[in-house]
Amino acid sequence: MAKSIAINAGSSSLKFTLFEMPEEKEIASGIIERIGLKDSIFTTKFNGEKYKVVEDIDDHEIGIQKVLDKLIELNVISSYDEITGVGHRVVAGGEYFKDSVLIDDDVLEKIESLSELAPLHNPANATGIRAFRKILPDITSIASFDTSFHTTMPKENYLYSIPMEYYEDFAARKYGAHGTSHKYVSEKAAKMIGKPLSETKIITCHLGNGASITAVKGGESIDTSMGFTPLAGVTMGTRSGDIDASLLPYLMEKLGLTDINDMINILNKKSGLLGLSGVSSDMRDVEEAAAEGNENAQTALDIFYNRVQKYIGQYIAILNGVDAIVFTAGIGENSKETREIIIDGMDWFGMKIDPEKNDVRGEERVISTDDSKIKVLLIPTDEEVMIARDIERLRKSN
Amino acid sequence: MAKSIAINAGSSSLKFTLFEMPEEKEIASGIIERIGLKDSIFTTKFNGEKYKVVEDIDDHEIGIQKVLDKLIELNVISSYDEITGVGHRVVAGGEYFKDSVLIDDDVLEKIESLSELAPLHNPANATGIRAFRKILPDITSIASFDTSFHTTMPKENYLYSIPMEYYEDFAARKYGAHGTSHKYVSEKAAKMIGKPLSETKIITCHLGNGASITAVKGGESIDTSMGFTPLAGVTMGTRSGDIDASLLPYLMEKLGLTDINDMINILNKKSGLLGLSGVSSDMRDVEEAAAEGNENAQTALDIFYNRVQKYIGQYIAILNGVDAIVFTAGIGENSKETREIIIDGMDWFGMKIDPEKNDVRGEERVISTDDSKIKVLLIPTDEEVMIARDIERLRKSN
Repeated sequence: MAKSIAINAGSSSLKFTLFEMPEEKEIASGIIERIGLKDSIFTTKFNGEKYKVVEDIDDHEIGIQKVLDKLIELNVISSYDEITGVGHRVVAGGEYFKDSVLIDDDVLEKIESLSELAPLHNPANATGIRAFRKILPDITSIASFDTSFHTTMPKENYLYSIPMEYYEDFAARKYGAHGTSHKYVSEKAAKMIGKPLSETKIITCHLGNGASITAVKGGESIDTSMGFTPLAGVTMGTRSGDIDASLLPYLMEKLGLTDINDMINILNKKSGLLGLSGVSSDMRDVEEAAAEGNENAQTALDIFYNRVQKYIGQYIAILNGVDAIVFTAGIGENSKETREIIIDGMDWFGMKIDPEKNDVRGEERVISTDDSKIKVLLIPTDEEVMIARDIERLRKSN
Repeated sequence: MAKSIAINAGSSSLKFTLFEMPEEKEIASGIIERIGLKDSIFTTKFNGEKYKVVEDIDDHEIGIQKVLDKLIELNVISSYDEITGVGHRVVAGGEYFKDSVLIDDDVLEKIESLSELAPLHNPANATGIRAFRKILPDITSIASFDTSFHTTMPKENYLYSIPMEYYEDFAARKYGAHGTSHKYVSEKAAKMIGKPLSETKIITCHLGNGASITAVKGGESIDTSMGFTPLAGVTMGTRSGDIDASLLPYLMEKLGLTDINDMINILNKKSGLLGLSGVSSDMRDVEEAAAEGNENAQTALDIFYNRVQKYIGQYIAILNGVDAIVFTAGIGENSKETREIIIDGMDWFGMKIDPEKNDVRGEERVISTDDSKIKVLLIPTDEEVMIARDIERLRKSN
């Protein structure tokens, strides 16, 4: 029996999920927020109870110690060394990491050198890795990359139509994200439709605050909506998704901005549902405002549906067909309106939502009608269990 | 009987086509290049003959006089006042010009004030208008806008997912281009498939050195691939089409650029087929290089096909079906490989090229198989005749 912990370290946060393996049983989970700030918030979930502590937690190392001590206090573990493996979620793996890997000095260095591709995330991920190595130096330690699943993309999909030397010299290309989630739900989907994964064509819609859509052929990602960074693709909570690049100089002049990074910051943090609706980046708030007659909120929703439909359409084109469309993540799992409007607006393709089956939140099931040529599936994602599985797999191969 | 002249004025060029109306008979055409430079080149086509003169032409006004004098010299007209109308192609009409209009002082001022949306084109177009007004002040003079046909787009398609005030305050939105061409071929297509225009769903692929794809529903543009400017959309001769905006700061840093306009310039002039292949911006050269084994040229082609397929797919999604797909403009009319690869790669949709029918250049015909559920059409575009028609229509309404 093994206990594995999946870690997602942000610049001021640390999420964890503890699994009993190989049963894949989630034992405990939690999050520390505001690390390095006053009044950090440390929340643990165990046995249906929620434990919350507010106290200053100065850095990730102290945070991890707090987590482990809490697990002992709650009798989840009796000592640190009961944890047999740790898996760190890392956002950018570049072209280098095509799969999860055991972490050694080289790997850690590589992760840090890829920070250019995810300036907000990779340094934070590396901080989490360093802290864990200090406290639990002897356990299996792996890195799981958001980009690995997308390293199978063919070059006509990962290259931009810019001078080829920008790819060769600067690695300027599409990397995508949410890979672990797209992999998880596409594997589930193949089982649900009873087809060998290698023969499937599946479009996975990971619709959360960050959102991406992936074309999966025979179990491999062949294209995804996020790009060089997670800015591109569909409309998101605060991110613009795709825009005409020539808007940047125009808006910078209008707004009196001289630093392009300020413009990119607006596109990352003040755009999307938030920027359009003027209400919120949270789909639930926007839906509520639209229902109350807020016209810009309704426009934000219409644009969100429209962009998802456009990606589904273009991926059906390059897959040349599709067996199933999967909805997952916050919006995908919880907003039945989103699923219904998107799918029923494309019934020409031979897909149709069953309103009764669709009247559900976060439950794995087929939500299309029995005669729907293309199956539509709701599959709650579970990125953490994928990390736990990788810990086991790499632990045994070690 | 009326003689109308369609004018396309660039910053250093002037194209003209003279029609006999209402017969829509093209009588003569030509182009002046290098206006304002040494050794301007003035070419006229008439009666199957080509006349070329190399001499300094200092400005557009002198250029127009040369054109008219040449037409008299060739006995095409006997005096200036035989020209009954002139139509000027204008690139950006903003949200203001929803149709072609008779030019007066207000219109001319408006066209110049819209220069922000087409800094290279609108000032040049205005120069052409001024010059003609000086020489032929009394004839019907109209402006025909590249954007007018797209003013029917619904807001979920013309808005970007950026703060709503950028649209309200700065008119930052999608305008599209090639409208006259998309309108012309979609109207032809409805006739060719024998369906009332108002009931059709047509996707028009204008694939030239500049390329755009439009979703036309009931004769109205509902979406188009070009954006705020003609930079966006599919891969073009030298333009990148869609890219992740976050590539801009990254590449600027790598390239040591401080002015974003230099970066946009690269995306407009050194990208696309040229940037990818390293060979040429001309599809024929790229096809030839690929056939000779140039791998980057083949990649450029693969990406071009891929991007067109993605737009066709996404427009089938938002149209929720499609009756016909139209190919037009330089590449669309002349490259049978392009048409075949794009369409046959999406046979799941129920469309199939007939290789024999497709073995043609620039001829109006159905090129799909008889059992192809979606019709595929080759329709040579004719933007000039559309302008000539508008001259007649507005001349009579005057």
